Amino acid sequence: MANLSQPEATNLAAGQNPPPEQQLHDHLDDHAFSFSPITLKKLPHLSDYLQDLQPAGPNPLDHNPFFHPSDGFYVNTSDVVLRQVACRLSPSGTIASPSHHLAYIRAGPRKQIFFDHCATRAAIVTCGGLCPGMNTVIRELVVGLWDLYGVRQIYGIKAGYRGFYSIRPIELNPKMVHNWHRRGGTVLETSRGGFDLTKIVDAIENHGFNQVYIIGGDGTMRGAVKIFEEVRRRKLKVGVTGIPKTVDNDVGIIDRSFGFQTAVEMAEQAIHAAHVEAESAVNGIGLVKLMGRSTGHIALHATLSSRDVDCCLIPETEFYLEGKGGLLEFLEQRLKERGHAVVVVAEGAGQDLIPRTTAQKEERDESGNMVFLDVGAWLKTELKKWWDREHPHELFTVKYIDPTYMIRAVPANATDNLYCTLVAHSAIHGLMAGYTGFVTGPINGNHAYIPLADVAQAKNEVNIKDHKWEWVRSITNQPDFVKSKQNSV
Amino acid sequence: MANLSQPEATNLAAGQNPPPEQQLHDHLDDHAFSFSPITLKKLPHLSDYLQDLQPAGPNPLDHNPFFHPSDGFYVNTSDVVLRQVACRLSPSGTIASPSHHLAYIRAGPRKQIFFDHCATRAAIVTCGGLCPGMNTVIRELVVGLWDLYGVRQIYGIKAGYRGFYSIRPIELNPKMVHNWHRRGGTVLETSRGGFDLTKIVDAIENHGFNQVYIIGGDGTMRGAVKIFEEVRRRKLKVGVTGIPKTVDNDVGIIDRSFGFQTAVEMAEQAIHAAHVEAESAVNGIGLVKLMGRSTGHIALHATLSSRDVDCCLIPETEFYLEGKGGLLEFLEQRLKERGHAVVVVAEGAGQDLIPRTTAQKEERDESGNMVFLDVGAWLKTELKKWWDREHPHELFTVKYIDPTYMIRAVPANATDNLYCTLVAHSAIHGLMAGYTGFVTGPINGNHAYIPLADVAQAKNEVNIKDHKWEWVRSITNQPDFVKSKQNSV
Amino acid sequence: MANLSQPEATNLAAGQNPPPEQQLHDHLDDHAFSFSPITLKKLPHLSDYLQDLQPAGPNPLDHNPFFHPSDGFYVNTSDVVLRQVACRLSPSGTIASPSHHLAYIRAGPRKQIFFDHCATRAAIVTCGGLCPGMNTVIRELVVGLWDLYGVRQIYGIKAGYRGFYSIRPIELNPKMVHNWHRRGGTVLETSRGGFDLTKIVDAIENHGFNQVYIIGGDGTMRGAVKIFEEVRRRKLKVGVTGIPKTVDNDVGIIDRSFGFQTAVEMAEQAIHAAHVEAESAVNGIGLVKLMGRSTGHIALHATLSSRDVDCCLIPETEFYLEGKGGLLEFLEQRLKERGHAVVVVAEGAGQDLIPRTTAQKEERDESGNMVFLDVGAWLKTELKKWWDREHPHELFTVKYIDPTYMIRAVPANATDNLYCTLVAHSAIHGLMAGYTGFVTGPINGNHAYIPLADVAQAKNEVNIKDHKWEWVRSITNQPDFVKSKQNSV
Amino acid sequence: MANLSQPEATNLAAGQNPPPEQQLHDHLDDHAFSFSPITLKKLPHLSDYLQDLQPAGPNPLDHNPFFHPSDGFYVNTSDVVLRQVACRLSPSGTIASPSHHLAYIRAGPRKQIFFDHCATRAAIVTCGGLCPGMNTVIRELVVGLWDLYGVRQIYGIKAGYRGFYSIRPIELNPKMVHNWHRRGGTVLETSRGGFDLTKIVDAIENHGFNQVYIIGGDGTMRGAVKIFEEVRRRKLKVGVTGIPKTVDNDVGIIDRSFGFQTAVEMAEQAIHAAHVEAESAVNGIGLVKLMGRSTGHIALHATLSSRDVDCCLIPETEFYLEGKGGLLEFLEQRLKERGHAVVVVAEGAGQDLIPRTTAQKEERDESGNMVFLDVGAWLKTELKKWWDREHPHELFTVKYIDPTYMIRAVPANATDNLYCTLVAHSAIHGLMAGYTGFVTGPINGNHAYIPLADVAQAKNEVNIKDHKWEWVRSITNQPDFVKSKQNSV
Repeated sequence: MANLSQPEATNLAAGQNPPPEQQLHDHLDDHAFSFSPITLKKLPHLSDYLQDLQPAGPNPLDHNPFFHPSDGFYVNTSDVVLRQVACRLSPSGTIASPSHHLAYIRAGPRKQIFFDHCATRAAIVTCGGLCPGMNTVIRELVVGLWDLYGVRQIYGIKAGYRGFYSIRPIELNPKMVHNWHRRGGTVLETSRGGFDLTKIVDAIENHGFNQVYIIGGDGTMRGAVKIFEEVRRRKLKVGVTGIPKTVDNDVGIIDRSFGFQTAVEMAEQAIHAAHVEAESAVNGIGLVKLMGRSTGHIALHATLSSRDVDCCLIPETEFYLEGKGGLLEFLEQRLKERGHAVVVVAEGAGQDLIPRTTAQKEERDESGNMVFLDVGAWLKTELKKWWDREHPHELFTVKYIDPTYMIRAVPANATDNLYCTLVAHSAIHGLMAGYTGFVTGPINGNHAYIPLADVAQAKNEVNIKDHKWEWVRSITNQPDFVKSKQNSV
Repeated sequence: MANLSQPEATNLAAGQNPPPEQQLHDHLDDHAFSFSPITLKKLPHLSDYLQDLQPAGPNPLDHNPFFHPSDGFYVNTSDVVLRQVACRLSPSGTIASPSHHLAYIRAGPRKQIFFDHCATRAAIVTCGGLCPGMNTVIRELVVGLWDLYGVRQIYGIKAGYRGFYSIRPIELNPKMVHNWHRRGGTVLETSRGGFDLTKIVDAIENHGFNQVYIIGGDGTMRGAVKIFEEVRRRKLKVGVTGIPKTVDNDVGIIDRSFGFQTAVEMAEQAIHAAHVEAESAVNGIGLVKLMGRSTGHIALHATLSSRDVDCCLIPETEFYLEGKGGLLEFLEQRLKERGHAVVVVAEGAGQDLIPRTTAQKEERDESGNMVFLDVGAWLKTELKKWWDREHPHELFTVKYIDPTYMIRAVPANATDNLYCTLVAHSAIHGLMAGYTGFVTGPINGNHAYIPLADVAQAKNEVNIKDHKWEWVRSITNQPDFVKSKQNSV
Repeated sequence: MANLSQPEATNLAAGQNPPPEQQLHDHLDDHAFSFSPITLKKLPHLSDYLQDLQPAGPNPLDHNPFFHPSDGFYVNTSDVVLRQVACRLSPSGTIASPSHHLAYIRAGPRKQIFFDHCATRAAIVTCGGLCPGMNTVIRELVVGLWDLYGVRQIYGIKAGYRGFYSIRPIELNPKMVHNWHRRGGTVLETSRGGFDLTKIVDAIENHGFNQVYIIGGDGTMRGAVKIFEEVRRRKLKVGVTGIPKTVDNDVGIIDRSFGFQTAVEMAEQAIHAAHVEAESAVNGIGLVKLMGRSTGHIALHATLSSRDVDCCLIPETEFYLEGKGGLLEFLEQRLKERGHAVVVVAEGAGQDLIPRTTAQKEERDESGNMVFLDVGAWLKTELKKWWDREHPHELFTVKYIDPTYMIRAVPANATDNLYCTLVAHSAIHGLMAGYTGFVTGPINGNHAYIPLADVAQAKNEVNIKDHKWEWVRSITNQPDFVKSKQNSV
Repeated sequence: MANLSQPEATNLAAGQNPPPEQQLHDHLDDHAFSFSPITLKKLPHLSDYLQDLQPAGPNPLDHNPFFHPSDGFYVNTSDVVLRQVACRLSPSGTIASPSHHLAYIRAGPRKQIFFDHCATRAAIVTCGGLCPGMNTVIRELVVGLWDLYGVRQIYGIKAGYRGFYSIRPIELNPKMVHNWHRRGGTVLETSRGGFDLTKIVDAIENHGFNQVYIIGGDGTMRGAVKIFEEVRRRKLKVGVTGIPKTVDNDVGIIDRSFGFQTAVEMAEQAIHAAHVEAESAVNGIGLVKLMGRSTGHIALHATLSSRDVDCCLIPETEFYLEGKGGLLEFLEQRLKERGHAVVVVAEGAGQDLIPRTTAQKEERDESGNMVFLDVGAWLKTELKKWWDREHPHELFTVKYIDPTYMIRAVPANATDNLYCTLVAHSAIHGLMAGYTGFVTGPINGNHAYIPLADVAQAKNEVNIKDHKWEWVRSITNQPDFVKSKQNSV
């Protein structure tokens, strides 16, 4: 995902006058700058706790007729990917902001591997909601293990975490998964919850799995951290890796997660339908709820792509209905000018505005957070009440579209499919090399290994101060609720 | 485009033993490394040759109700994007390969601008073949100039370079271009050739244009360099910028160009049709020619996405038909095993294999290169001849699909549309800031300004030694023509 | 729409032994049968109440360079379309069931017309909900009036019936509507209600309209009948025609209405998504509500096309939840066997099962019918309650998809677009010929004129005794609720 | 396919004055007319030549839990479908044109069947080119035989007619074919030719097949007639039925064939791409070749749907290039007016215009007809030559698109899928009832059985005198080549 955003940090000391542009410009002539220190993010490795672990031998790709490992084909431990790629040169000839100069271990095949193909026994599990590309990831793990490393014992765990201890694993092979990349959903089935650490790790031991591939969202990744830690505690030779699956694109550190671009394409279709419905009515409002519990990436991207949206509401910004600068005033104006309006709302937006029953106030999800209420249905009702109150004799229509399941269930498009291949292969190469407790994903376009614990925490929020969000506001002309709110107080 | 590839450089001196993996691994604990020097790619600026040029004032975004320039909103001259993001740490605690540590000026709005909105007169031109997203770029240039900087004099040059001096420019405004992002092709029309430097720069002067946005491929970019140089020679206050348009994705330095991902989606459909035709016949071969004169990116990506391809031929690798390890032997085998086969060939592949008439040997395109012959039609004929010769009494079918125009003519998908927005805005910000002779595009996911002359030269070839290409071969099991050829000699 | 159904009538007298098949077969040798009498459905004509009405002259198509009226080009009053095309020959050599032998006036251009192109002033209005193809019909009316008959005064009435008396009509021409067939919805906007007979006919008089094209559903058609009658009462030279618009395909007599086939295509996509969601969950149920208040045609056709549906519920059949032979028992069984199930429910199904509040019992829509409750939401809740009660500790998921607005808002597909052209031209030819108070539509594949009053009454219900419905049950294996109900009593 | 066309026959005796419209109108008041005699098209039946054939018993649908044969459920021998549904009433109160009053045996299940489910052994074969829906027909034959009649011996013949005697048949069952309706092409594979009557009927005997389902075009149907006749000559109890497969829709008597509507949807996309290419160039011509050897239905329908075509050339009309009223003059004019043009040409158009080599003149296809030359490629060359000659210094572009294989290879859309189900079931019911040597298809929207021999001969040409074709000309404004030609002579 390309960024056109402001620098994330400015390290010029306060009070210091920046040099006039032109001056600096001359100054920064094609000469060399020195770079500030870089911190490497270390990765857990099986050998950390298995003292006498020996490599299983050279990488079988050496003898694979379709690969010709040339100089530089294998990635080695000192190959890294820089996280901070946009930075500020200081006039003194150094680069500022050392705190951001993190480097991650680069993903890719290693010269030496720690698993013999005969002894490798891999388990793949999918958890949480659907996301385009899940089946492609599974397919590519199976085909990759089989073709790249000669692994023949590959198992699918059904129905999420609980499947480890409650359902017999399914044996998988390339023939079986051949067409899965054309299917939406997950053939392995998925579920939420069912995380019982002891039972899961017992099952891993009992089944003799020594590679575990866990595909899921942030909750799932937190579970994966625990599995990795328990495996380490028990000193098992079991590699554990996580593949972030979040259609919301809310996982931090990595550039984006699979299925996101497919979801944006589909979301645009729903917005288009809402626009047609709104346009074809008198005082018509098309209201679309899009996925995004803690982040509004899908709403933001679909709004930018469609350019038919009048207001885009995301969890990262507050909004309010009544009064000056509020949503209702804005819609009143927009209906007067154009006769119709389209509102896109991410499912996590406005949660603080929706009245909660006592029960709803108490209710917590598995992670202890307040449950989400349906902002779309609430908004639809509020809009109707408002119009009936203010314009009782005028026509008004709200058409509410919730395309969630129609978005989630499609197969991944070509871009996401390719992403799935790369991420699956990276994961395989990493486990084969003895790494564990990691996640694989692209950082600035280069696949890297990231400690699981880091990813399980990191959030990828929409930066409402960057250009993409400003541009949304520029396209929609929607009010800046925060500012107006302050004014109206 | 994410890369899962081998490091581009290894700087360990020959003969030096790399440390054993495990050793290095311990060594590279979370401590700090120092970075080797960085070279900044300087950008031309109007003030380089207009000595008394003064800024026109602060950026109007300061007062735009939809933007809230906060600290760090404006990009300044010392903000850069690093080109080399994957690198190798050396055990001594430094980062190797200094030659690659280039930095490019970051794209984005500047605090000070050099064009007053009343005095700005912008021209937009599209040249060369069609590519999904051209209309979106035009639309976003018009809307961006209008909304971000208050420019009201925006003109479209019709029919490519020749339009500057032969057709009256069309005035453009946001209302007019509102829905262009949903249309394929270019409403401004396009053509090849027609580059007459003096006439073009005369026309720019006569029409009073002071910002010129040129959308086109590598030939067009080389023309843009000349226009920029002539403008500079005449000391005109005219900013010139190029926006690389290449459905083949063959432009170097930048991550990818607009329309590429849309093209891959469509190419996959053509491959799918070829697969159905091949499968439904006895000894059926589906042959698809895809765009890609000097590079095989579309063929490569569509092959990876589809996974139905038996052989993928691209310009970056040679192939041959007859003999051991040749294409015919491979297809013979594949038909025997599966009863059908799908061959994807990029239009630039195999050019040296196709017999040329004397006339064709002489013929040169505008750039002085030998003209391209139709590798698809040739291959179709060769396959038929081969089969008739070898298996005169057996059924055989080649279905040849050339989906080029059906791919080029579609509107951009959501991902490419967003790209177009970002690239158009970057271009506007850059010219407004007084930069000229530059191209804008993403480098490692961050938009940057790159000297036009550099981009006009740089090629983005498929790296046939990286994992993506090896994976293609692993999927297709196609022969490694180079190696076999050597063996067979 | 092709029918593979049982004969609609059998007139063999009771008690009479049908001849053995073989015997009859010989009997029915290629000889001639005589046909029983046919009744012609007469059409209102302006001359019925305008005694001195004279034809305006010959049809201008005579001199249209693109038409070459040959013998038989013009339809004449005695050209008819038979309604009953499938019938039963009796052994005595006659055809039975005279009551069904209706004939309708055939649609098409007439030799003589009653409107001069200069004096013609046409109004077009769209009422009710959206349906794919509305814009195509408007477009084709405008282009047809303009190109075929040289009419230059063509107006769009905005926002449905109320637009006649409350909004200024918009002038339409071919250039303006050129691309409307690619847009969903209705550019003229639509609304429900607003029918004020006097105001509407006054407005028709005041604006000088003498041709009124009314596009809408059954309620709209009933309004059109009243307008026609009032126009006739006032003895105005105003032709009134209705074009049935019903995405549900619930209008009788005609074969099908425009937009229906497009809707079925889209409905199938929603079912596919529901199937993916259901398959990917443990005990997953995908529930899709499809349009169809009084008829289940969309549900039926989409079920047959998709073949992924486990149960299809339509208004024409009753169903029940609890007990032997009920829906819950069936789903219990299906989940046990397959692990998932897909249920399609037409919006008008099960209305008698949903508990109504006192207010809901009182509430009536404009036509005096009880309001529809949301059967999808109700069913979703009931399914959850049932599972929690019966299987409190087992996983269960219901994913409910309501794709209504995403289906209605798409542009018509090619088949529906062609239908729209033919129906618009038929309507124009009919009014030009002086007919009024009619509807145009295909009967057994041939366009005919049908008295408005007949169409306003006729229903097109799914025949639950015909093969299509039986085949649905055969595909789904769903219970026959009626029969089981009787058994369980 | 709905028809808005002139009556196919007018039987008013020459010299007789038709009554004035108004007079007739009064005359034709709602009273009864008598119908002229009807001729029934007899169908071959196994009992015709198997004298002692006895019914196998009652239809198993009697006991199928999903069917409730009510009165009228079973079709009986005397149920017919009328072919002539649009006719002309004569003032004398009778209906004219007896020659057209044909009746066909209605399709559907019979009370008595002649095949026991245990003894039934069915063979399915696909021949000729691809067409959307082939796999659906196969699927529905398999599922229908299995579910409706309990047949368990169902075989697929691979690779067309030659598969009967050269390839081992594949056993088919519902599980295997479950998802075939989602796949383009034919899983059974197809080929042209290979018709060896003796070998085929020997193979039918040797394999013990007693029901043969033959899916193919007109050549295939002629082969099917011969098979039926040979089977009859040998007095075998083998039912033979044909299912017309022609994406061109060139089969007569039936309303339309499967896959046609899907093909029109896809053809429209190709036209759209051609339009974009033409619009985006200077003097750009988009040229699309569409399927249609003897008929132009796809070209006609796609032209009407798209409305972006400037000229539509079909086999049913002649055209010429040079001179007054020719294609080149027309395009010259159109380029001058609009700057671009789109030409659609059916593959069978203009065959007499293309110069043939001596070899090509001799060459005959299997049916003894002259081979088809590529009218698209020829036209492209002619257009270029013309422009170079007439406007040597002006830009000009022809973009030629041949989407044939991309159209043929897609899966059927919902409308076509439903058609496939109905036609497959009709075929099964017919063979089960002992009929043979027939084809099944819709006549005026009702499925009927038609003698194979009749269908093998009947052509469905575009009626260039009916309204649809006139409307094409009205949309395109293309010249009437015939007339102008006469003038220019």
